[in-house]
Amino acid sequence: MYDLKCLAHHPPELGYTMVMKITVKDIQQAHVRIAPYIHCTPILESRALNKIIGCELLFKAENFQKIGAFKARGGCNAVFSMDEASLQEGVVTHSSGNHGAALAWAAALRGAPCTVVMPENAPAVKIAAVAGYGATIELCEPNMSAREGTVARLIEQHGYTLVHPYDEDVIIAGQGTAALELLEQIDKPVDIIMAPVGGGGLLGGTGIYAKGMSDAKVIGAEPEGAKDAWLGYNSGERLAEYTPNTVADGLRATVGVRNFAAITETVDDILLCSEERIIEAMRLIWTRLKVIIEPSCAVPLAAIMDQPEQFQGKRVAIILSGGNVDLDALPW
Amino acid sequence: MYDLKCLAHHPPELGYTMVMKITVKDIQQAHVRIAPYIHCTPILESRALNKIIGCELLFKAENFQKIGAFKARGGCNAVFSMDEASLQEGVVTHSSGNHGAALAWAAALRGAPCTVVMPENAPAVKIAAVAGYGATIELCEPNMSAREGTVARLIEQHGYTLVHPYDEDVIIAGQGTAALELLEQIDKPVDIIMAPVGGGGLLGGTGIYAKGMSDAKVIGAEPEGAKDAWLGYNSGERLAEYTPNTVADGLRATVGVRNFAAITETVDDILLCSEERIIEAMRLIWTRLKVIIEPSCAVPLAAIMDQPEQFQGKRVAIILSGGNVDLDALPW
Repeated sequence: MYDLKCLAHHPPELGYTMVMKITVKDIQQAHVRIAPYIHCTPILESRALNKIIGCELLFKAENFQKIGAFKARGGCNAVFSMDEASLQEGVVTHSSGNHGAALAWAAALRGAPCTVVMPENAPAVKIAAVAGYGATIELCEPNMSAREGTVARLIEQHGYTLVHPYDEDVIIAGQGTAALELLEQIDKPVDIIMAPVGGGGLLGGTGIYAKGMSDAKVIGAEPEGAKDAWLGYNSGERLAEYTPNTVADGLRATVGVRNFAAITETVDDILLCSEERIIEAMRLIWTRLKVIIEPSCAVPLAAIMDQPEQFQGKRVAIILSGGNVDLDALPW
Repeated sequence: MYDLKCLAHHPPELGYTMVMKITVKDIQQAHVRIAPYIHCTPILESRALNKIIGCELLFKAENFQKIGAFKARGGCNAVFSMDEASLQEGVVTHSSGNHGAALAWAAALRGAPCTVVMPENAPAVKIAAVAGYGATIELCEPNMSAREGTVARLIEQHGYTLVHPYDEDVIIAGQGTAALELLEQIDKPVDIIMAPVGGGGLLGGTGIYAKGMSDAKVIGAEPEGAKDAWLGYNSGERLAEYTPNTVADGLRATVGVRNFAAITETVDDILLCSEERIIEAMRLIWTRLKVIIEPSCAVPLAAIMDQPEQFQGKRVAIILSGGNVDLDALPW
């Protein structure tokens, strides 16, 4: 039902495998488009941590990104890809997390109206963050059908354009710019690039860029309690529905259609990790790198710790996805 | 009793005001000496935080320094100022915190023996950190006379050289290198430079360098529950004894003799802040800058929040002193 106003042409799912369309060039163009507005985030390293883990780790610190997460990249690319007329009619999304803040922030940069549909049980601090960027908040019941229904109603009533959190070409291309920067920033090649996978925007974009522009292996990491991408990757068929259960709140989404296509085409492997290991890895990053990260960011390091053999002595880049965490509800 | 083996010539307290001897040049030479071993830490900024506080804040992120705190600067300068023969006899200090780790780390760089006297109730994680740098740990009863007595005995027995945590020329000069880097890193002048004050190594070194090399006001910040520097600064007489009570565990020391001289000579003011405000400021830095800092680091921001008038619209640099915090004992 969103076809008319969607940013990209979402082909209906016709039962055949969708061909991935996003290219390295799309990601390069996205980077040119968004570079004036985003941070080129630093690469962090810790010798003490390398010693503990047994490989050379480079962390792309997207927790220092605008709105505190890589989602600023996709949101910015979506908004700056739109023509002025459509944009001024307004954009809409549903999000209980970083994508809502990212779209609100990006829309404000172009002075465009933005509405974010949020579940009524979303933490007050997250609602305040989105409102702080000037977006209109529309609360709904805390379930996916209420969220999608509310978005559909708003599109119907106001002619808003939907910007999906991850299953969208411009979003995937935008998220891929983190890998573009990473590869430009490092002074010698890495053996492996890792990113966590939730909806698959970050991992999809990372895979497309890194496979096209480097010899690095691209490995996704996912919590065992939210392993829909892992199941789909290994069976060759995307899971349309899955009920996740993980502390990594940013990874509770189910992989999108075009995200799945990008991942199956470009990613070398997806590794799982336990919940306990996520918390252990998160604490290690907090104490050794001295940066605040969300549990989702710790998933690649946790996957390395859970299956260390293939990483020993390797040079491994990890994209730290974000740093928006509730200090009153830490997982330890 | 440490006279013979002390790094600097500590004049006995004879009742007259001690003249400050450390100069800008000492700090410049210290920087040349230690630069190969320390990190030139980044300056962090957050527009969102600036908006909340009402001034332009620049944070020198010494939480990213070696051993996780600015203390690496002084420890490194002390060790690399020593001649090889004295050094190989060994260095000693007493510390329950960052200075012990700093001296252990610096001594290891030159392959020199180091002993750190620690109270037997020190957290296991801190003991492990110092031991991890290869130092010998000597446990003692958890009071100052036991600590000093144990150090004296070790010096007597082994001929070690004492490296005091703050009341030492080479330590003050070393800590002053953070301000040196800060002033070289910023692209336009700041109105005010702030540092927390405990023993006074950081604030003393900052004052000497910043007063000599910039037009910025230098302001120290201290918790109300540990206001010995504030009392001494305002009365003109250093307090030799004071019982602190503050969440800012790094600031529980009493200002040293030569630190007091440097501070009274160069610092424009010392401001106090409440305990509640320290925790609020610490959370603001965690959530807005996405970095892990110790409570001590939050004291300058807390002082600004407690008396905002003189800071409104100003450009203010704050030295974030360190990031070694116990994640299982957060103050909220």
